[in-house]
Amino acid sequence: MKSYQSKNKVHLAVDCIIIGFSEDKLELLCIKRDFEPFHGQWSLMGGFMTHEETLDEAAKRVLKKLTGLDDIYMEQLPAFSTIDRDPVERTVSVPYFALINSEDFKDKLIDKYSAHWFSIEELPNLIFDHSHMVAAALKRLRARTTTKPIGFELLPERFTMLQLQSLYEAILDRKLDKRNFNTKVMAMDILYRLPEKETNTSKKGSYLYRFDKDAYIQKMEEGLRFKLEFNSI
Amino acid sequence: MKSYQSKNKVHLAVDCIIIGFSEDKLELLCIKRDFEPFHGQWSLMGGFMTHEETLDEAAKRVLKKLTGLDDIYMEQLPAFSTIDRDPVERTVSVPYFALINSEDFKDKLIDKYSAHWFSIEELPNLIFDHSHMVAAALKRLRARTTTKPIGFELLPERFTMLQLQSLYEAILDRKLDKRNFNTKVMAMDILYRLPEKETNTSKKGSYLYRFDKDAYIQKMEEGLRFKLEFNSI
Repeated sequence: MKSYQSKNKVHLAVDCIIIGFSEDKLELLCIKRDFEPFHGQWSLMGGFMTHEETLDEAAKRVLKKLTGLDDIYMEQLPAFSTIDRDPVERTVSVPYFALINSEDFKDKLIDKYSAHWFSIEELPNLIFDHSHMVAAALKRLRARTTTKPIGFELLPERFTMLQLQSLYEAILDRKLDKRNFNTKVMAMDILYRLPEKETNTSKKGSYLYRFDKDAYIQKMEEGLRFKLEFNSI
Repeated sequence: MKSYQSKNKVHLAVDCIIIGFSEDKLELLCIKRDFEPFHGQWSLMGGFMTHEETLDEAAKRVLKKLTGLDDIYMEQLPAFSTIDRDPVERTVSVPYFALINSEDFKDKLIDKYSAHWFSIEELPNLIFDHSHMVAAALKRLRARTTTKPIGFELLPERFTMLQLQSLYEAILDRKLDKRNFNTKVMAMDILYRLPEKETNTSKKGSYLYRFDKDAYIQKMEEGLRFKLEFNSI
């Protein structure tokens, strides 16, 4: 039934969909390929899994090589295995999506990969089936807003309610009702309101919040006890 | 960064976690291996992906070979890629779980694989990391009850509310409050109550229901508009 014939073997790759958030927009980190095929074209950051590592380890290695970052939340998406997706040799790719705070580490990017952040709304053409991988990651991210908290990885440590709402609006791709958003988000029970206010954007100032990291992690694992459904305006 | 060296190549397998429901219990379909390694031991039904098919196609082929069934709902789970999981050669396996009505096709099983249904509560030892795959499938199934309808694939065409409740109890592994269950399930808006009653189990009889297939499929795709949380008794 099974037979270990080398003719069945394939290359197994990982590709990282690295999503950030800056100036009210979701962003995607792309690299310019400096090798064939598709030299000079935009691509996700990827690499082959070696025999000395698992898929998760390969994805972490690839992410670290590009960003210098360790210890990032990553989630595996279903594998892409169309027969001719890679014109050189049969390659199955397992996409991982990572959420990071893009502002925090813009200067840490490794120059040699010509990495660049693109707004999700203005992505360049990507090689292979990479745009389908991005679409799958965005769909997963959107679904996650209804059952799990989101934002911890994408926002600065202290943020205003408006920033959090902008993040959800960017993920869900629609404007949300402010009062309904506040109520729903506070019901998640993962936010601290800080004593200080942010006063750059309005004279009255806006309260700053931070995530209760333990509660956040717990709810990431368990899921929320209710389904979040935000009202549009 | 990437390099197509044959030393990186691996075997890519699919393994099917085939789940059924019979006499108030979830069941798992296992086969007895008739080849090495682990000859004579219990295993999930699996096989290698070939160069002529995608992962989904390989999973369908494997499922059909064992059950004769086409057109079954299958869902891909994250890949298992521990380095030494297969003692013969480096093999990464992508598990798929399938839900089927085990009563419907017990006689269709292909004899030569010595296939056998085991109650989930009394599983034999499985080879490789197959018991971890089963655990991952059950976890995914449990999570699905909160956001999507479930049962269509596992129940006969007409069923009583008690049968549906038994299915949810088997998946969630706890007893549920009957009245709360009825209310929550009817709110999903995917059930028809039929004019006839089932009268084998009580003198008064129990209403029979069937799924509104279109509504069911639509809610499978979109997810429910609320999160289902059932009360235990």
